[in-house]
Amino acid sequence: MKYSIGIELGVKNIVAGVLDKNGKLIRRDTIPTNKDRAFEEIIKDMCGLISKVLSDEDLEVKNIKYIGVGCPGITDNLNGIVLKNYTMNFNNVKVRAEVQKYFNVPVYVENDGNCVAIAEYLLGAAYGTGNSLTIKVGVGIGGGIILDGCIYNGLNFGGTEFGHMVIDFDGRPCTCGRKGCWEQYASASALIGRTKQLIEEYPDSILANIASNCCNNQITELTIFEAAKAGDDKAKKACQEYVLYFAEGLANIVNILMPEVVIIAGPISKLGNSLVYPLVDLLREKIYCKELHIPEFKMAEMGNAGIIVGAAMLGAFKDEKLTDLI
Amino acid sequence: MKYSIGIELGVKNIVAGVLDKNGKLIRRDTIPTNKDRAFEEIIKDMCGLISKVLSDEDLEVKNIKYIGVGCPGITDNLNGIVLKNYTMNFNNVKVRAEVQKYFNVPVYVENDGNCVAIAEYLLGAAYGTGNSLTIKVGVGIGGGIILDGCIYNGLNFGGTEFGHMVIDFDGRPCTCGRKGCWEQYASASALIGRTKQLIEEYPDSILANIASNCCNNQITELTIFEAAKAGDDKAKKACQEYVLYFAEGLANIVNILMPEVVIIAGPISKLGNSLVYPLVDLLREKIYCKELHIPEFKMAEMGNAGIIVGAAMLGAFKDEKLTDLI
Repeated sequence: MKYSIGIELGVKNIVAGVLDKNGKLIRRDTIPTNKDRAFEEIIKDMCGLISKVLSDEDLEVKNIKYIGVGCPGITDNLNGIVLKNYTMNFNNVKVRAEVQKYFNVPVYVENDGNCVAIAEYLLGAAYGTGNSLTIKVGVGIGGGIILDGCIYNGLNFGGTEFGHMVIDFDGRPCTCGRKGCWEQYASASALIGRTKQLIEEYPDSILANIASNCCNNQITELTIFEAAKAGDDKAKKACQEYVLYFAEGLANIVNILMPEVVIIAGPISKLGNSLVYPLVDLLREKIYCKELHIPEFKMAEMGNAGIIVGAAMLGAFKDEKLTDLI
Repeated sequence: MKYSIGIELGVKNIVAGVLDKNGKLIRRDTIPTNKDRAFEEIIKDMCGLISKVLSDEDLEVKNIKYIGVGCPGITDNLNGIVLKNYTMNFNNVKVRAEVQKYFNVPVYVENDGNCVAIAEYLLGAAYGTGNSLTIKVGVGIGGGIILDGCIYNGLNFGGTEFGHMVIDFDGRPCTCGRKGCWEQYASASALIGRTKQLIEEYPDSILANIASNCCNNQITELTIFEAAKAGDDKAKKACQEYVLYFAEGLANIVNILMPEVVIIAGPISKLGNSLVYPLVDLLREKIYCKELHIPEFKMAEMGNAGIIVGAAMLGAFKDEKLTDLI
């Protein structure tokens, strides 16, 4: 019986997972990325982590059918190269070739948002659909489009940069150089930033109290929604604003693509129905020709394993041997 | 030798064209739509116009292989039905069945923006490309996406509503009920509206003079660009603003789809390089990861015949008998 390995090459951490032939994640381990190092060192550590999870499961390289690596940035998934990355020193790095210096197995490389879209399509909330849109909301907003069972790349793999869609002309400055990009309003980072702002402005508020007591001082995307539920009016208003911004950008994308199903993934998916219910109400107003059709909106089912599961499935997905992963 | 008929069912006019087997438009005629009538009357007149253009070319129904109808609105191109239309009384109208009451030939029905995209793909500026995006800028902003040689529909044919993408949160009110939609800033109507506004504000300006003398009092999308060229500073600033709004929305769509080529069609394409050159300069700044790739930007080649040519080609396009139209 053969297994596959999925890697999340993240800005903070590298996560490696082992999938069995049913797509079940049977082992997972994490090391820090220390992103400012040379890419060779990062890949060496990544391959060390692969050896570790294999050994922890009493497996050897010969038991592995595929290795898949999910990375941020623009990724040439045909040749296994990370072309461009604004958050790490991975520019024009031949990840496939580098990993194959350590392991003589097929290696696949894909953008992390596309990995999540593939995982949800093959095993999660988009299972059984032909055309799905997965929006991954974390530090920024990325994701993937599945059309007729294939990942959509665009010219030179440069499409699906959903976060860099201006929704507020002349609005908040974005890292990409434009103003008013969606991710400056609707990313998890934007929500956490707003939370911190409110805590600073209102240090005696319910929100500030929740933040200091309940979260071990760790402010997350959930904090402000908890405060809103507990009766903090300022937090409630900020949550409503957040959902409104989220809906504005999502309605834009739906008006262009009109997929069968929209999956909301990434850290923000922890919000669950606190986000989905008010969001869908707004989308019902905002989507063009809503009398006829709106897609189904769902939270991702893969939790924080979306990238590693999708990455581990890349080989089977690209070979279209989905019924015969191993 | 067989021919095909293309119809533009417009809000103001119905245009019928005859295409020969090389896709050459050999005859064209126009009647007013009088859009507030019952759809049966409009279709009766449309079929009368088809008979007229046939007769003017000494052709009979037996010489016709296909009839194609391009309509505004959401169009079920499988069953030949206009599902929803905000500008005419064509809601759930079985156009194919209605036209076949008059002509016993295969009838195809398609959204007008998709017709233009198909015409440019088969015979115009997108010829030879796999993935193209055609943006049709007129009263509103529509268009079509060609992926791997097929038109992209989206769920229930509801995709590619490019104009209803909010670029200015809480901005100008749109007919769709949202605020800040792209077409309120970058459509030909928006540009003409701004032109009229400036003429009213500055009745002694170069712009006002050009509008009253050179255009037979007919203000078009060209008027303000002519005034800018002639040295009207206010007109120049308005043109720059217009191109900026145009670029903002187009960069959004390119960041999502990253097509090989973007075709700008509709009345606005008459602006030619006055629009394309400054637009491409802005897009080079605004497109994400522009160091790696930006699509090619071109003006449509079909002029105002895009809808009828695309409509006439629908049968061959859908049958994939492109080398054997007749």
